[in-house]
Amino acid sequence: MKIDIVTIFPEMFTGVFSSSMIKRAQDTGAVTIDITDFRKYSPNKHHTVDDTPYGGGGGMVLKPEPIFFAVESLLEKCNSKRPARVILTSPQGEVFSQEKAIELAREEHLVLICGHYEGYDERIRQHLVTDEISIGDYVLTGGELPAMVIVDSIVRLLPGVLGNEQSAENDSFRNGLLEYPQYTRPAEFRGWKVPDVLLSGNHAKIEEWRRKESLRRTLLRRPDLLQKAELNERDQRLLQKVKEEMGNA
Amino acid sequence: MKIDIVTIFPEMFTGVFSSSMIKRAQDTGAVTIDITDFRKYSPNKHHTVDDTPYGGGGGMVLKPEPIFFAVESLLEKCNSKRPARVILTSPQGEVFSQEKAIELAREEHLVLICGHYEGYDERIRQHLVTDEISIGDYVLTGGELPAMVIVDSIVRLLPGVLGNEQSAENDSFRNGLLEYPQYTRPAEFRGWKVPDVLLSGNHAKIEEWRRKESLRRTLLRRPDLLQKAELNERDQRLLQKVKEEMGNA
Repeated sequence: MKIDIVTIFPEMFTGVFSSSMIKRAQDTGAVTIDITDFRKYSPNKHHTVDDTPYGGGGGMVLKPEPIFFAVESLLEKCNSKRPARVILTSPQGEVFSQEKAIELAREEHLVLICGHYEGYDERIRQHLVTDEISIGDYVLTGGELPAMVIVDSIVRLLPGVLGNEQSAENDSFRNGLLEYPQYTRPAEFRGWKVPDVLLSGNHAKIEEWRRKESLRRTLLRRPDLLQKAELNERDQRLLQKVKEEMGNA
Repeated sequence: MKIDIVTIFPEMFTGVFSSSMIKRAQDTGAVTIDITDFRKYSPNKHHTVDDTPYGGGGGMVLKPEPIFFAVESLLEKCNSKRPARVILTSPQGEVFSQEKAIELAREEHLVLICGHYEGYDERIRQHLVTDEISIGDYVLTGGELPAMVIVDSIVRLLPGVLGNEQSAENDSFRNGLLEYPQYTRPAEFRGWKVPDVLLSGNHAKIEEWRRKESLRRTLLRRPDLLQKAELNERDQRLLQKVKEEMGNA
């Protein structure tokens, strides 16, 4: 996979892209990530990238030319068979999700445009971009952090990047419930003990406890997820039990 | 405001925290941000921070001691009047929002714990943490990017960090609609023209066009936001118009 990032703050990416999983994925060749400063593509001699909005109002708007020219030069250079996905990070976009990460992880070439949230010239949206993505309903200074979040979530899904053990965790997210509580050594810390069942060695009981706690946590914290989750008969029964316990408490 | 980040990957933060708005906010004294490597607080001579889960299963779980000791030492050092908010970044948390950013921007001391998503020992959640926050329904390698996102969204709300013009934009997000389309020079690019109304100089018409487009975009892309937004009589009328136009199209 090839990922191009188009930004006027290339230096922001150094810490994240040269650490941990994203570095390893680049070292093993699972992904190539390049950062392009679109300021260099401004036809203006002062290399300006923004201007005041037509119709008045505060803030500056990103001009079409530098972003069109930068992205088009990247699309020309890349010889992937499938057309690239050109992604704009923006609070107006589709809300990012694990399903979207899985979908994008199947692509060959992604171009991520990091804007600044005063706004993009609308023609960038209409004639250059294929996807507009928001990582959540909050305001950030720029599109750089959203681009890093999107890249992290996608790269870890690429074949060979994570070990098998860790990949299982995706499946558990995909089934739509929150994780059950985890415990590790010591068995007692400041008088707080690990639940007996986890020390019992009874795998069937442990599995049932975990599933029940997973259902309980999702019910308490994210009932919206529970509505969308596909629950089998056993899950329904466990959920009923959880509800009864909560009713009695 | 004081922000402490507790992580085993301190180097990930350099690019983001030494750029742009977050750097400026630190330079002007609006916020002090410190990064603490909790590996140093491991009582173990090998400085291990994780261990296998009780009850079996894949992945490693973060041990209680290093995180308790690191956070407690930060809480002792800080002499803020209000108790600190101790925030865990986790997919199991409350979904982050602009309202939560505004709430947290009023605090004196925030401690953000960046875990890795195989899991935290549950006792950290139960006995140390005051808030659990998820930045969205997707899986990331670690809590570092979520911490950066949370810090960015909060720091830009602190008094004096952004100019007045930019702060207005928050208000527009807070009223619960997506932004209207923005345009800047050139008035024509590759045959694509800026809408006439924006060049008309008629401010009342421009304002009405923008409000209408804002309603249209929210209706098309995020009907969930529209249900929660507080619309006055004029908004209701404009929305009705938009719906009629879409019905006729």
